[in-house]
Amino acid sequence: MSMAKDWRTIFVTGGAGYIGSHCIVELLESGYDVVAIDNFANSVTESSGESAALKRVEQITGKKVTFYNCDLIDRDKLETVFKKHKIDCVIHFAAIKAVGESMQIPLHYYRNNIIGAINLLEVMKAAGCFQLVFSSSCTVYGEPNVLPITEEHPTGNITNVYGRTKYFIEEMLKDISRAEKNWNIISLRYFNPVGAHQSGLIGEDPTKSFTNLMPYIAQVALRHKPELIIFGGDYPTKDGTGIRDYIHVMDLAAGHVAALNALHKRHLRLKIYNLGTGKGVSVLELIKIFENVTGTTVPYVIKDRREGDIVSMYANTDLAEKELEWRTKFNVERMCEDFWRWQTMNPHGYRNSVKNGISEHVNGTL
Amino acid sequence: MSMAKDWRTIFVTGGAGYIGSHCIVELLESGYDVVAIDNFANSVTESSGESAALKRVEQITGKKVTFYNCDLIDRDKLETVFKKHKIDCVIHFAAIKAVGESMQIPLHYYRNNIIGAINLLEVMKAAGCFQLVFSSSCTVYGEPNVLPITEEHPTGNITNVYGRTKYFIEEMLKDISRAEKNWNIISLRYFNPVGAHQSGLIGEDPTKSFTNLMPYIAQVALRHKPELIIFGGDYPTKDGTGIRDYIHVMDLAAGHVAALNALHKRHLRLKIYNLGTGKGVSVLELIKIFENVTGTTVPYVIKDRREGDIVSMYANTDLAEKELEWRTKFNVERMCEDFWRWQTMNPHGYRNSVKNGISEHVNGTL
Repeated sequence: MSMAKDWRTIFVTGGAGYIGSHCIVELLESGYDVVAIDNFANSVTESSGESAALKRVEQITGKKVTFYNCDLIDRDKLETVFKKHKIDCVIHFAAIKAVGESMQIPLHYYRNNIIGAINLLEVMKAAGCFQLVFSSSCTVYGEPNVLPITEEHPTGNITNVYGRTKYFIEEMLKDISRAEKNWNIISLRYFNPVGAHQSGLIGEDPTKSFTNLMPYIAQVALRHKPELIIFGGDYPTKDGTGIRDYIHVMDLAAGHVAALNALHKRHLRLKIYNLGTGKGVSVLELIKIFENVTGTTVPYVIKDRREGDIVSMYANTDLAEKELEWRTKFNVERMCEDFWRWQTMNPHGYRNSVKNGISEHVNGTL
Repeated sequence: MSMAKDWRTIFVTGGAGYIGSHCIVELLESGYDVVAIDNFANSVTESSGESAALKRVEQITGKKVTFYNCDLIDRDKLETVFKKHKIDCVIHFAAIKAVGESMQIPLHYYRNNIIGAINLLEVMKAAGCFQLVFSSSCTVYGEPNVLPITEEHPTGNITNVYGRTKYFIEEMLKDISRAEKNWNIISLRYFNPVGAHQSGLIGEDPTKSFTNLMPYIAQVALRHKPELIIFGGDYPTKDGTGIRDYIHVMDLAAGHVAALNALHKRHLRLKIYNLGTGKGVSVLELIKIFENVTGTTVPYVIKDRREGDIVSMYANTDLAEKELEWRTKFNVERMCEDFWRWQTMNPHGYRNSVKNGISEHVNGTL
């Protein structure tokens, strides 16, 4: 991917997070400058205040990232960043995202995700920046009426608070893009991002991700947990277990660069795209592939279905392939292989990482 | 209505507004103390910083209202009010509410209504106050599938931003009441509040309400506008015009006191009630009744249907009647009569009101 003409600086919220950090690799390698912020709600800060993940990103790319420890709730600080840099486009990843936790402390989720988005949109508008790529999620579809699911599928009836915050923000984006013609927004509905950068240097920090299937599988493979519990083995699917559309995080990252190109080429107001592979993979299939790729065994036990779980969800990706000129490259084997490399090289994620002589990290000061 | 045992102080947001001020009359007359806030987004402030409407409320009731000029966006100030007073229950009216305007400046609506609600809920929780009556709206139902509409009707698919803010807040209330058992909330879905207090001293300030039908009718009756434009005369209704469920604002106010009693009697977590009369009245019927009651004529012209307008909407009120032990008292004639008294006594609303020797207004200082 190459840089969209005369766009230089991309502002990335949640830049130290799992998807944010992988996307920044892709942005830097496509020639963009990146100004990133994070509040370290989901990610690791070093004693210096730097982001452990972004230091690795600089190591991978040989380029520098301008980083601010900034919470979107702090609108004044956000404004200061926008005054300091000429931002061409924003990619808004920042969100708290633990589905189970979101049901326990909903107000916290609404404050962070919704107020954060409102502040960001207002600050962008005040700065005259109307270009935005938003991290949405397939959870906005609720229980699918039809599969594979297209962008036309109704949204709403969402089973958890996290998903509701994504849905509310999408509705706000529809409203502002309808009301104000300057906005040029792409909302990307992610399916199930997994895997890691092929270097093994960045990945999903395991300390906060045990509710996601692949990190959970890895914990069992490593015998940190005795067995994997599968909720529901009698669903009307090929082997009775739930079906998801896993997408390699570097394919997802490339989708964001493709979205930037699309925004740069045409004034879209608001467009929504699924980012998935289009392939449904069952829990048992994922376990089998993981075992084959990693040479481990993953004992599992099947328990009752869990209320609110969606049986089967995978994307129709025609629209993104056509209009973003983007296509996934990596299969499930590769997702497992890259995930396992990250996992074995960094058993505790970023926490006990050894300092290596990487290029100096540019920390912006305000 | 009498005061719920050992509940004394009710905190009212948007207390200077149309429904808030009428509700405060009913609260004071039921023996409650009222601490009210308003940011004067929809209401009139006097040069002294007092609320014109609340001075009239004090004149009507002979009681005092503690009032603060406070915006819910200012969380610190709100916290200070909660520290200064022991609040037993909150009634949350504050919102910006012009449907047309909400489509023009959606971010402003999201900021005010959504962030305001999140701040209020957080401050309540921190203060240990979990009793809440929320002003919702029949707009959360979208286009009705069945009439009269019950509280079980699906919500969502809302045609305007204002309604979407009400819907989002209701969804947040469902989530917090599910997650945290302390909450005790009633959400009241208003149909179409009209009319005024029988004294003619308080009513809907006309300067911001010309998009509502009855103030618009009055402007035509007074020849401030040449004719009433009716959008759509060929709907599948009794006379081809749209049907609404008009409810006298003092009936609505009594519904809030009934809701307080219900919250006090039982721990409900969250309950939702329609507040309407259950009777559908067409635009032409309302004009005819208005003309008869006021002795005026209201010339009208019928134009094309307007996109997004709902054909017909009226409430099934069985649940509120049964569980809140509440029933409307006033018919449409009375709504017109009381509205007209307010209108003729205060042709410019609160703006040019003559100071009369009313009891001293208690302005809280922080």
